[in-house]
Amino acid sequence: MKFGARNQLTGKVAAIKKGMLMCQVKIELDPKGTMSSVFTLDSLKELGIKKGDKVQVIVKAVNVLLAK
Amino acid sequence: MKFGARNQLTGKVAAIKKGMLMCQVKIELDPKGTMSSVFTLDSLKELGIKKGDKVQVIVKAVNVLLAK
Amino acid sequence: MKFGARNQLTGKVAAIKKGMLMCQVKIELDPKGTMSSVFTLDSLKELGIKKGDKVQVIVKAVNVLLAK
Amino acid sequence: MKFGARNQLTGKVAAIKKGMLMCQVKIELDPKGTMSSVFTLDSLKELGIKKGDKVQVIVKAVNVLLAK
Amino acid sequence: MKFGARNQLTGKVAAIKKGMLMCQVKIELDPKGTMSSVFTLDSLKELGIKKGDKVQVIVKAVNVLLAK
Amino acid sequence: MKFGARNQLTGKVAAIKKGMLMCQVKIELDPKGTMSSVFTLDSLKELGIKKGDKVQVIVKAVNVLLAK
Repeated sequence: MKFGARNQLTGKVAAIKKGMLMCQVKIELDPKGTMSSVFTLDSLKELGIKKGDKVQVIVKAVNVLLAK
Repeated sequence: MKFGARNQLTGKVAAIKKGMLMCQVKIELDPKGTMSSVFTLDSLKELGIKKGDKVQVIVKAVNVLLAK
Repeated sequence: MKFGARNQLTGKVAAIKKGMLMCQVKIELDPKGTMSSVFTLDSLKELGIKKGDKVQVIVKAVNVLLAK
Repeated sequence: MKFGARNQLTGKVAAIKKGMLMCQVKIELDPKGTMSSVFTLDSLKELGIKKGDKVQVIVKAVNVLLAK
Repeated sequence: MKFGARNQLTGKVAAIKKGMLMCQVKIELDPKGTMSSVFTLDSLKELGIKKGDKVQVIVKAVNVLLAK
Repeated sequence: MKFGARNQLTGKVAAIKKGMLMCQVKIELDPKGTMSSVFTLDSLKELGIKKGDKVQVIVKAVNVLLAK
């Protein structure tokens, strides 16, 4: 499957924290670095990921902020 | 300076493409991978970056989509 | 493939307009309605869509605004 | 009232789930399909919606991701 | 009309710049400060704003980044 | 530090509400008005802000919606 987004990294699920509606998933990027994603528990259930699973990390370029 | 965002990577400006209002900046992440950011030419001018400059790449976790 | 997003609609590409950096793609939803997506020409090329192609339309719930 | 956004659908509130800070509202689109929105409980209170209410669903085109 | 968003400011259109697909609108906030919005020319046409018009500026709280 | 974003306001932290994963921070803008930001408790801890602290409020122009 292909996506209309400039940023597509791969990594493994390192941790999943659950709130009442949302979850926060930490991804260990390959080969280094971490990223986190926040989304609904409903989507977490549908996505069906667990610690260690390989996932794609997708970010639209308009949502990336540069600082210097 | 500190930011209220989970995703903070560092990299170097690899390429800058300019449109009429917006620009697209490609960042080579340290140590591997690339990310791209789209923002206004006005902000590019204020930011004052050029090829080779070190920059911070900031993404709020709510803007990160996971796929599996 | 599965996504960590609440909003996943399907439709057909109805029109593609190109700017200098970005494109605007209009989708005819099944069975009714239209949605539009703006993203980079680079991603359009990678995505490889043309008029009439079936696509998935993905929106994170945090990016949906309600008004009444 | 008019909005500077390409995506404006209409629907009815089908369900409201509340967390500690945020809520998740499910909308049944007219004539088919569902969408969900996540926003603060403070905004939910101001918006004053309940199950069955007609609402507008607004999404900026830059926040729409296509996949194929 | 009411919105499911925490940030609702008012101001006047100070400038409109047009690209090929998108426009950039500068708003003078009441009583001080400026904000800018980028959206499609199609939405600009629908919105029908011109310099001096009073507009509402809406931003979801999840899209606001704090720095210190 | 400089940012690739059109909207950069300053203000003081007026209130911090905490959920299980996220927090909601209310900012009193200088000289008038308020804005709110929602982000993770992890980022709140890193940012290290408390009531009365001066902060920068950053919003990319693509995340600003106009209504009339």
